[in-house]
Amino acid sequence: MRWIKFTAEGRTAYGILEGDRIAEVAGDPFAGYETTSRRHDLAAVKIEVPLIPRTFYAAGLNYVEHVIEGAKKRGETPNIPTKADIGYRAVNALIAHGENVVIPADAGEKIHYEGEIVAVIGKKAKNLSEAEALSCVMGWTIGNDVSERTWQKNDRTFWRGKNTDTFKPMGPWIDTDFDMEAATTNVRLNGEIRTSFATGHMLFSTAHFISVMTRYLTLWPGDVIWLGTDGVSPDLKHGDVVDVEITGLGNLRNTFVREGL
Amino acid sequence: MRWIKFTAEGRTAYGILEGDRIAEVAGDPFAGYETTSRRHDLAAVKIEVPLIPRTFYAAGLNYVEHVIEGAKKRGETPNIPTKADIGYRAVNALIAHGENVVIPADAGEKIHYEGEIVAVIGKKAKNLSEAEALSCVMGWTIGNDVSERTWQKNDRTFWRGKNTDTFKPMGPWIDTDFDMEAATTNVRLNGEIRTSFATGHMLFSTAHFISVMTRYLTLWPGDVIWLGTDGVSPDLKHGDVVDVEITGLGNLRNTFVREGL
Repeated sequence: MRWIKFTAEGRTAYGILEGDRIAEVAGDPFAGYETTSRRHDLAAVKIEVPLIPRTFYAAGLNYVEHVIEGAKKRGETPNIPTKADIGYRAVNALIAHGENVVIPADAGEKIHYEGEIVAVIGKKAKNLSEAEALSCVMGWTIGNDVSERTWQKNDRTFWRGKNTDTFKPMGPWIDTDFDMEAATTNVRLNGEIRTSFATGHMLFSTAHFISVMTRYLTLWPGDVIWLGTDGVSPDLKHGDVVDVEITGLGNLRNTFVREGL
Repeated sequence: MRWIKFTAEGRTAYGILEGDRIAEVAGDPFAGYETTSRRHDLAAVKIEVPLIPRTFYAAGLNYVEHVIEGAKKRGETPNIPTKADIGYRAVNALIAHGENVVIPADAGEKIHYEGEIVAVIGKKAKNLSEAEALSCVMGWTIGNDVSERTWQKNDRTFWRGKNTDTFKPMGPWIDTDFDMEAATTNVRLNGEIRTSFATGHMLFSTAHFISVMTRYLTLWPGDVIWLGTDGVSPDLKHGDVVDVEITGLGNLRNTFVREGL
């Protein structure tokens, strides 16, 4: 089942996607819903960010090649994480499928994409074993962890480098039946595949992260966990279109524009 | 005016505090409210966390003595921030005035308090000058940025060291008329003042933070900015009671208990 949040006829609502039609619901997938008789064409609605997370978790470094290539680019020794220490991103930066990533006028040239699989939490969870960890996941979506590498390197935190407004595209929908093991993440720049990796080949699995995290913290319905990326991005320029496709799940498309151009 | 969130007679609501009485409202201070005829004794209600932030910002290092003494304790050279780079904390960790901070059984001995003034954002804001920055602040509350220093030092992120469940007491209420310049932050351990500093003597003022932040990000109603602490904390033990008083604003009291004792 695919959950989509959308605006149509001046109203923002959740719906269930059936092919290219949306069955609008009253309520939401977290607190409960009822189906309505309203139907919409997917092509005719404005797709919204699928949810505003309660807490926005992000694994950061969770695929080997990304760690090695990133370190090489910075002239550093790769520091492959030995523990599943989760990080954070900020809600202000979220935008929907189809919206523009706006690069501030004073940003550097190293603007990079990071295509990521995102776990959406549906149930309150604490102290889950790795075997039962995925029981709190209600579905999966796609994220693009856009980064300005100069700020990321030189600021004391990731506040601008990772969390500038519009730097966190997420969507287009939440899929409750996604099969991670069969999936490939393909990132296209202006239509051409530039990064491709097996979505499930992580350093630490989603189940491992959830099990470790819930020893110390409670996961809540509406939390999201972005699970990291592999490979490296070219420097993105004004007008570039980036598609993050995860096979069997969907495609998240955003255009990058530079402020003031 | 003081806004308080509370539970009484099985209902959680916002109210306006008048002396030791609460005038219950329908709605909230962010989206709008109407006063009701219901009144409660402050002493008879359960005080709740004053709000669940949309984004939970934290200045981290923002008072000179805290930076210097912290570095000394770790045997490092003090690294006083030269820029107002904001950080983040996590919503899962919030607890209310009067609730227990629960130290995990496997935590180390270096459990520390950090008494902080907290700005509560009431209006959407982008690109505010320093002169107009405080116009988006609807009020002020108190936070205790509880920290486990061994995890804080050794983990790749602050996920356990700062954001373990219960590590972020906030409250007891939001004061819309607070005068920062006249205020002192007093932190008491079991009734005795152990840390005391001028609340407003920050490295970077609230207005400066907001002005810098809103060059890159949008502040939203319900965001909070924790503004850092001064001084150092003794190691806290099972049964310790910590009061963070900010004069003219209120007192945030929490008891520390160690899991499994």
